[in-house]
Amino acid sequence: MSESPKPRSGRTAHGRRRVRSALALAAMELFAAQGFEATTVDQIADTAGVGRRTFFRYFRSKEDVVFPGHDERLAEVKEHLEAADRSADPLRVLAETAEFVLDMYLAEPEVSLKRFELTRQVSALRDKEIASIDRYQRVFARYLRDRCAGEPSGELRAAVAAAAVVATHNHVLRQWLRSGGELDARAELRRALEQVTAALAGQWCAAEPESVVVGAVVRTTAPAGVVLKQVEDALRDLPR
Amino acid sequence: MSESPKPRSGRTAHGRRRVRSALALAAMELFAAQGFEATTVDQIADTAGVGRRTFFRYFRSKEDVVFPGHDERLAEVKEHLEAADRSADPLRVLAETAEFVLDMYLAEPEVSLKRFELTRQVSALRDKEIASIDRYQRVFARYLRDRCAGEPSGELRAAVAAAAVVATHNHVLRQWLRSGGELDARAELRRALEQVTAALAGQWCAAEPESVVVGAVVRTTAPAGVVLKQVEDALRDLPR
Repeated sequence: MSESPKPRSGRTAHGRRRVRSALALAAMELFAAQGFEATTVDQIADTAGVGRRTFFRYFRSKEDVVFPGHDERLAEVKEHLEAADRSADPLRVLAETAEFVLDMYLAEPEVSLKRFELTRQVSALRDKEIASIDRYQRVFARYLRDRCAGEPSGELRAAVAAAAVVATHNHVLRQWLRSGGELDARAELRRALEQVTAALAGQWCAAEPESVVVGAVVRTTAPAGVVLKQVEDALRDLPR
Repeated sequence: MSESPKPRSGRTAHGRRRVRSALALAAMELFAAQGFEATTVDQIADTAGVGRRTFFRYFRSKEDVVFPGHDERLAEVKEHLEAADRSADPLRVLAETAEFVLDMYLAEPEVSLKRFELTRQVSALRDKEIASIDRYQRVFARYLRDRCAGEPSGELRAAVAAAAVVATHNHVLRQWLRSGGELDARAELRRALEQVTAALAGQWCAAEPESVVVGAVVRTTAPAGVVLKQVEDALRDLPR
C-alpha cells in the first residue's frame, strides 16, 4: 500500500496553519534579533521561505503577525456575544467567551510560547499585546453595559466585571505559559472563572428575570397527584 | 507701586509646568496632523518655540511626551505602596493610590483633554496609553500579591482586585474627560471605589489582623469609672 500524497502547503487547513505558524515564528525571531521597527515584511517572508504575496494572504500587516488570529477571534467574540441568549446569566456568557479566547492561544502553543518569551524582552511588543487584550476587555464591557443598562451604576459595574473576567483569563494564560504549556489551562480557567463570577454575581449584573408566577389554587387536602396535575395544567397555558 | 517681575519660563515650578505643557500640546498637535512615527523631537521643540535640548530637559523620549509625568508618577506609586502601613486594608491603600494617579490627569486638564481627543483618532497612541495604564495595574497587582501571599488563590485574587480598582479609575477618568473636565472627578472616584472595594472586601484580600485581646477582669457591679480605669490600665501595658 502506497502512502497517500502529502497535501501541498497552504492548500489544506493543516497546510495553511503550518505556513501561518512558520511566518509567525520567523517574524518573532527577527523581532527579537533586530527589533520590531527594523524588521520588514520581505525579511519575514524570506526567512519563512515564502514570497511577500503569501505573507499578505495570511496577515494584513507586520503588527498582525505578532498576534495571528486576534482580529478574526475578536470578530467572532463580538458575533458570539450578540447571538448569546438574553436570558442567560451575562457573567456566565462572558466566562464561556473567555474560554473561547483562551483556545486561540492553546491551539498554537509553539507560537504562544515564543511570543511570551519575546514580549518579556521587547517592550514594544508587550505594549501591542496589552493593547490587543484591551480590545477584548472593551468588547466584554460593551456587552455587559448593554445587559446591565438601567441598573444603578450599570456602566461602572460593567467595566469592573469585564476587567475581572479578563484579569482571570490573563492570570490563567500566564500560568500556562510559565508552565511551558503543561498546565491544563481549560480546567484551570473554568475553576478560576467560577470563583470570580460567583463573587461578582448578584452584586454586579443580574440576568434578565425569567421569573414566572404560576397561579394554581389547590385544596391542601387534595392528593399530591391532583396538585401536580393542576400545576402542570397551569404551566401548559404559559407562553413559551 | 510697580508690578513684580514675571518669572522667566522654566526657572520656576509654574514656568516649568508651562514649558512642559506647551511641549506636550505641540507634540499632540503634530501627532494628530502627521502621525506619531513621522513626527520628530526637533519639530516638537520648534513648534513649542524651544530648543531640542530643552525638550530633553523635560522628556526622555517622544513616547514620554504623550504621557508627561507617567514615569515619575509610577515611581511615586511604587514608593507609596512600599511605605504603606502593613496593617491597613490593602484595598483601601489601593483606593488612595488610585486617587493619587487621577490627580496627575486633573493637574493638567488641557493636556489630558487634548490627549483624549487624540487617542480616539490615533490608535498607536491609544495603544501607548493602554500600555501605560497596564503598568499601574501590574504594580497594584504586585502589591496585592505581596499582601495576599499565603491566602488561597492569592495570586488570582490580587490580579482581579487590581484590575477592578484600575477599571474603576479608568471609568471615572473617562467620565471626567467626556464631561470636558467639568465632573468632580475626585468625589466621583471616591464614591465609585467605595462601592467596588466594599463588594470585593472580605472575599478578596483581607488586611493583616490587628486584633488585640484586652484581658481585664472586672466586677460587673463596679462603677463605670472603675471599669474604664481597669481597661485603660490593661491597654497601657500592650506593646505599641
